[in-house]
Amino acid sequence: MTNPAIKHYLQFNDLNADEYRHLFARAALIKKKFKAYEKHHPLVDRTLAMIFEKASTRTRVSFEAGMYQLGGSVVHLTTGDSQLGRAEPIEDSAKVISRMVDLVMIRTYEQTKIERFATHSRVPVINGLTNEFHPCQILADLFTYLEHRGTDTLGQPDPARLAGKVVAWVGDGNNMANTWLQAAELLGFTVHLSTPSGYEVDPAVAGLRSSGSYKIFKDPRDACAGADLVTTDVWTSMGYEAENEARMRAFANWCVNADMMRAAKPEALFMHCLPAHRGEEVSAEVIDGPQSVVWDEAENRMHVQKALMEYLLLGRVA
Amino acid sequence: MTNPAIKHYLQFNDLNADEYRHLFARAALIKKKFKAYEKHHPLVDRTLAMIFEKASTRTRVSFEAGMYQLGGSVVHLTTGDSQLGRAEPIEDSAKVISRMVDLVMIRTYEQTKIERFATHSRVPVINGLTNEFHPCQILADLFTYLEHRGTDTLGQPDPARLAGKVVAWVGDGNNMANTWLQAAELLGFTVHLSTPSGYEVDPAVAGLRSSGSYKIFKDPRDACAGADLVTTDVWTSMGYEAENEARMRAFANWCVNADMMRAAKPEALFMHCLPAHRGEEVSAEVIDGPQSVVWDEAENRMHVQKALMEYLLLGRVA
Amino acid sequence: MTNPAIKHYLQFNDLNADEYRHLFARAALIKKKFKAYEKHHPLVDRTLAMIFEKASTRTRVSFEAGMYQLGGSVVHLTTGDSQLGRAEPIEDSAKVISRMVDLVMIRTYEQTKIERFATHSRVPVINGLTNEFHPCQILADLFTYLEHRGTDTLGQPDPARLAGKVVAWVGDGNNMANTWLQAAELLGFTVHLSTPSGYEVDPAVAGLRSSGSYKIFKDPRDACAGADLVTTDVWTSMGYEAENEARMRAFANWCVNADMMRAAKPEALFMHCLPAHRGEEVSAEVIDGPQSVVWDEAENRMHVQKALMEYLLLGRVA
Repeated sequence: MTNPAIKHYLQFNDLNADEYRHLFARAALIKKKFKAYEKHHPLVDRTLAMIFEKASTRTRVSFEAGMYQLGGSVVHLTTGDSQLGRAEPIEDSAKVISRMVDLVMIRTYEQTKIERFATHSRVPVINGLTNEFHPCQILADLFTYLEHRGTDTLGQPDPARLAGKVVAWVGDGNNMANTWLQAAELLGFTVHLSTPSGYEVDPAVAGLRSSGSYKIFKDPRDACAGADLVTTDVWTSMGYEAENEARMRAFANWCVNADMMRAAKPEALFMHCLPAHRGEEVSAEVIDGPQSVVWDEAENRMHVQKALMEYLLLGRVA
Repeated sequence: MTNPAIKHYLQFNDLNADEYRHLFARAALIKKKFKAYEKHHPLVDRTLAMIFEKASTRTRVSFEAGMYQLGGSVVHLTTGDSQLGRAEPIEDSAKVISRMVDLVMIRTYEQTKIERFATHSRVPVINGLTNEFHPCQILADLFTYLEHRGTDTLGQPDPARLAGKVVAWVGDGNNMANTWLQAAELLGFTVHLSTPSGYEVDPAVAGLRSSGSYKIFKDPRDACAGADLVTTDVWTSMGYEAENEARMRAFANWCVNADMMRAAKPEALFMHCLPAHRGEEVSAEVIDGPQSVVWDEAENRMHVQKALMEYLLLGRVA
Repeated sequence: MTNPAIKHYLQFNDLNADEYRHLFARAALIKKKFKAYEKHHPLVDRTLAMIFEKASTRTRVSFEAGMYQLGGSVVHLTTGDSQLGRAEPIEDSAKVISRMVDLVMIRTYEQTKIERFATHSRVPVINGLTNEFHPCQILADLFTYLEHRGTDTLGQPDPARLAGKVVAWVGDGNNMANTWLQAAELLGFTVHLSTPSGYEVDPAVAGLRSSGSYKIFKDPRDACAGADLVTTDVWTSMGYEAENEARMRAFANWCVNADMMRAAKPEALFMHCLPAHRGEEVSAEVIDGPQSVVWDEAENRMHVQKALMEYLLLGRVA
């Protein structure tokens, strides 16, 4: 069984609302220091192992540069070096690697793989994307939303400002959608889901306590109606390339365009975890338009993950 | 000719017994500091180049994390980046790389490759595994043995405690076996070798002065009789995958199981350099049982290699 | 449009003669400190992203080790991780990556790719080799020349000493040749070009103001006559392997041998950016002979690039 004394971040609901409040505040501080080139080295002598079974630019750069900025170091393992469960049981890899480093980030396929790793790890494990969840991305998205639309009187991101908000998820019922569901239930907002037939979200994956935090819409434009945030993802995520043609047909009406954005609130934001395919899941005028905060969103991956790594290793620091 | 002023670690007998005593003591100290998060940065501004022609998790993580913990940095080159001897003669690579870094670790095929590299290198070269030898692993194994069964009255690993001990090597007559032979002659213990027919150790490879430090056994159970340490390796090492089926047949009786361990001394330890294939070279009850110290062994790779890198670059430090 | 406030290094003539004087002086100082293990950490907390679409040993090690020695850190992205323009438009990659790091080095194919990246980057971009240019190599070559033949009375590399000198380029009319042309016009020396028919330099690529800084020779021996520096490159650069056989025939007379070196000045140097193929573009007696400074040249990549990175990020430092 997972050692309860070790804090992992495998799903969004591995942390509670109060911990998120702390993380958002730390991320804001850490970002401010970064912009000012102010040294912030709480993780000197700590090493992060990153295990990638799927390629990545954003996750790679954000975690690696982030760890260096915290004074730590990084060992980057790719599938070529170490495919989890191929050369040896995942459990053995977890035991060995966690003897030599302080923190492990894994991007892999099945959520069960990362869970098995965590169970046998002596150090915290972070989900850097699985088929089921992508908590670091949602952490960045929420921080980005709060930065733009939810700061308190002191200019701090205030997760209480999420209460009652509406996030429209347009497109694939994938790991991002599952994670939005967990976040909505935990932080008190509502997700409007609109997915093509055959690509629905399975709410059982998110393990929700109730169905009160999401609504399902056939028409993506209806999902966007009154939304505070409209967000989507590529039609064909990594690992599903064989289905590409079928997906192109099925998703044709799930392109976030200016029409959909007009259905949302005037102050609504647009987000996308990138890379984006303009003309497919989002029109160029939306992603490159004034409501889009996708570049801030990408940058914020780094800042929130720095706060997360600091928290998992050191707990609440002043 | 290799510059005699530069200390390389290409074979186990590149260091003498006194140097090993020093390394074990340093490794113990370095491990203690690591566990206490005590800063130990003797290699600030020093860079280690790691050249991998075979994939590796353990060697990769142990050297890379170890170098960071010593305050240094690492450049990790894989075959894709630089296959030794393909794009340019090994001698040229050695001259160029050793102008820019302070230390080089190489995992490759033929021992002659690493020797040619060392001959033209301006900086120390470490053998991170060749077809013939794996000295860093045996260094870790001996340290692990001493930690568990050979400390002096002050709790320090004492290589004198190796004298007269028996190490049973069960399985492939490979680089690990060759290195055990060198270690036994140098440090005064005996190796019991039992290998399937056709997979014998060639003692000429180890370049021993005599045949007094090893005995050969047909039956692996006989090799284990009275042993202080029983150790094995996968039946098919990297690079020999084509022979896999033939090896599976030939090695069938060379599985270290509870029977063999009962033949050894009651206080005998079991080691394996990992990854392990349970049910092939070792039974699950042995590797996951109380005599197994394989996780300590894996972790100790990092600690002994840190001591080794410090020694090759700085000599004896207080 | 490229932000004029950000200094990129995409072509040799992105810097002026006065800036080169500064860089050579800094490189000399930085090299001296390196040799003395004297700490020089101006780039603490700065991160360099390196994007390689072509493999490399020298560029890899020199930039990565160099950045560490400056106190900074490195994220190394290969094509597997991130092929520019495949998963997402180059412009998007530039926006995202330059939000998270302080400096980007790119080795790619078309010069237009690196220019598009730079246009959308918030941080300086360095050309680590394109089909058209290789400015970092020429920077190293000039520094190496000055070290050996062009220091002032204080022993400092003095680019004024380049005026009137003759550099003979023997072989492929490639990115190196183009860059030599830019350097010659900027710093006041002359390039003697001799290339096989069909492999001529296209002077339009270098964008020269006049044709006064180069001369074209049919016979490579004539190009070497009176030269202060003779230099060449492999007959088949990376990316042109399909043409290898045709090139072997066409380039047969463009081997820099002792004959050619005798045509040059007695004090002439030989350079090669490596890897070298002895017996093809250069004879063993030349590259391994007393006029060859190829190992210094390789090492100096690191020192000049350290000066370059420092300058692009911090400007003129005392």
